[in-house]
Amino acid sequence: MKDFSVNGFQFVGIHCGIKKSGKPDIGLIVAKKPVPCAGVFTTNQIVAAPVVQSRNKLARSAQAQAVVINSGNANACTGKQGEQDARQMAVWTASAIDCSPDDVQVCSTGVIGAPLPMAVIHEGINTAARSLSDESLPDFAEAIRTTDTFAKVRSAHITVGDRVFKVAGASKGAGMIHPNMATMLGVMVTDAPIQGSEIGDMWRRICAHTFNAITIDGDTSTNDTALFMASGAAGGTYLKGTDLADFEAQLLTFTAELAKDIVRDAEGGTKVVEIRVCGALDIHEAKLAANTIALSPLVKTAIHGEDPNWGRIIAAAGRSGAKLDPNALNLRFNDVNLYREGEWLGTDSEKNASQVMAQPEYIITLNLGVGQASHGVYTCDFSADYIRINADYRS
Amino acid sequence: MKDFSVNGFQFVGIHCGIKKSGKPDIGLIVAKKPVPCAGVFTTNQIVAAPVVQSRNKLARSAQAQAVVINSGNANACTGKQGEQDARQMAVWTASAIDCSPDDVQVCSTGVIGAPLPMAVIHEGINTAARSLSDESLPDFAEAIRTTDTFAKVRSAHITVGDRVFKVAGASKGAGMIHPNMATMLGVMVTDAPIQGSEIGDMWRRICAHTFNAITIDGDTSTNDTALFMASGAAGGTYLKGTDLADFEAQLLTFTAELAKDIVRDAEGGTKVVEIRVCGALDIHEAKLAANTIALSPLVKTAIHGEDPNWGRIIAAAGRSGAKLDPNALNLRFNDVNLYREGEWLGTDSEKNASQVMAQPEYIITLNLGVGQASHGVYTCDFSADYIRINADYRS
Repeated sequence: MKDFSVNGFQFVGIHCGIKKSGKPDIGLIVAKKPVPCAGVFTTNQIVAAPVVQSRNKLARSAQAQAVVINSGNANACTGKQGEQDARQMAVWTASAIDCSPDDVQVCSTGVIGAPLPMAVIHEGINTAARSLSDESLPDFAEAIRTTDTFAKVRSAHITVGDRVFKVAGASKGAGMIHPNMATMLGVMVTDAPIQGSEIGDMWRRICAHTFNAITIDGDTSTNDTALFMASGAAGGTYLKGTDLADFEAQLLTFTAELAKDIVRDAEGGTKVVEIRVCGALDIHEAKLAANTIALSPLVKTAIHGEDPNWGRIIAAAGRSGAKLDPNALNLRFNDVNLYREGEWLGTDSEKNASQVMAQPEYIITLNLGVGQASHGVYTCDFSADYIRINADYRS
Repeated sequence: MKDFSVNGFQFVGIHCGIKKSGKPDIGLIVAKKPVPCAGVFTTNQIVAAPVVQSRNKLARSAQAQAVVINSGNANACTGKQGEQDARQMAVWTASAIDCSPDDVQVCSTGVIGAPLPMAVIHEGINTAARSLSDESLPDFAEAIRTTDTFAKVRSAHITVGDRVFKVAGASKGAGMIHPNMATMLGVMVTDAPIQGSEIGDMWRRICAHTFNAITIDGDTSTNDTALFMASGAAGGTYLKGTDLADFEAQLLTFTAELAKDIVRDAEGGTKVVEIRVCGALDIHEAKLAANTIALSPLVKTAIHGEDPNWGRIIAAAGRSGAKLDPNALNLRFNDVNLYREGEWLGTDSEKNASQVMAQPEYIITLNLGVGQASHGVYTCDFSADYIRINADYRS
């Protein structure tokens, strides 16, 4: 059996009564003491109560001792009552594990507009806190699911010089899967010693290329949250300099897989495609072009139809606002060139590109031909199932 | 029979041999002399050869005597040969009707990457020029179709004080209908006397609320063009001041219907919905919010499912970048309030909104609660047919 333990953390996921199905709906991650913690939250102006409070806590101090997450109810658009309920969840969790409510991160995901069933949540937190164990991250991953078709949980070793650390995490969501104010959640933990002064910037850089680089339908939610906690229980001095950079690079690769799991689970999606834009003037323009291509319904339907429709891709780049040189554009599907120096390479290149597109995962690379900046995003296709699922979601 | 004639103009549309189907594929609009003309063109950086040339001509002098449009081939991504071919179309048209090539606007729409069949186009222009007539605008509208399911042609009277003018026009496109570097085209003509110095700004303002306010899938093409010509053949002094404003308001209403015809024809679309954002800080933010809502796949699938999913609409506004006050938001489907001062009005309001959504055309109004600016855009729903049509387009 795969080992999901990470020194310094315990996990739990149980059913407390929010979901009518009887499936797990509340989970905890608890550290032995307050540890460095970083969070990246939704940029939507409509923000759920737990997000406002969790964000404020990390802004005051980059640490946490516990994460409590309920599924089945997003506590969004719930007004003053929602704010009070989110505070209460932190107070109950703090009391159950004996820490300060300021060190409890709270997340909620599920339906919006309805008040949280606070009585069952109170009992759920108390029961969960008594069932914490080193090995239960997979149970936690189950407890944060809403309509995900599989629980998303991974662990890995990160080697820096002669030191070996553990990293593990869980994610859930998004987009197609939870169309109604969908929530993307991700929580990573490590036993590596990372200073509170370093963890925030590192996590923001990692999220830019992982949880913030997955685009399913462009709709962000009121509840999106990605957390990273470092217990330091592996011992030794704080990671710094090139060691820290080495750790960050490996954490990025690990986190990217948990982020891609969300795209892999996109209901109605059958492909995971990285849209990689290079040769852009700056990183902002690279992101703009990559996101415009990744979100174009015409591109996403062409991906579904395995149609190497280069016209749709370059037209999307052309309207994105990113500067490009029409006579220097290069377009590649994996290693198949389709368009070079602004000229289409003919029907043979399309046939070869079609073979790439028959694969479940591949990379489309577009060189804008005007600079050195690059950015990649992960997207999926649009299938008829996407429409069916999202048109009928609440009926 | 409806009268599509406009004093000072003649029209024609015939088959010359570009389309294998034998359907009309080349059309002309010809004025008796050079007349004031305005154009609004694609903002895509990937621009077809005819657009570059037509745009340059109108930048030098706000006049034209003829418009020549071929369908079946977009003359896009065709390099130097394409530039030469677009110039040649203007030269042949000028020669056939005896004017300067500088006064000929050229548009092309259809497949990309392939060279124009210039021999049949040469003969087609000459044949067409011999068949011009006052009543043939409907033939012209037929000749600019690609996969439109109906020809889009309209005419109306515009009354300013005791003066009555004619206006007529044709449009074609776009988005879902012509996914492969789709083209939106619109050409309006009037016999009203409008000065060259006024026509450009007026046409840009009108297009902002008509041809540039229709969003099907957010993908703009290399060939989009909207032209407006004023022969002045109705006689009298140039329209100015409040008379001109009065004319503009009525032309806007007329043009909006031809623009909405494009949305009505969206393949896979079953609804035409105006997304009207008000209470925005400024017009830029009103547009940003309206377009974000109108293009959200989650909103478009909810429209298809007739599901009054207010969460998706306010979440889309929340991520748009336009400033809003979550506690002052108001949301209305026609005259049914669904969300007021930041609070959901309950399941009864959703039932009433569902009845509005059962109609083929309706208005969704969202008040952002922070200012006075407003903007409306026309969108359609996403159906499973949209995916089918666009995934299989070229196979």
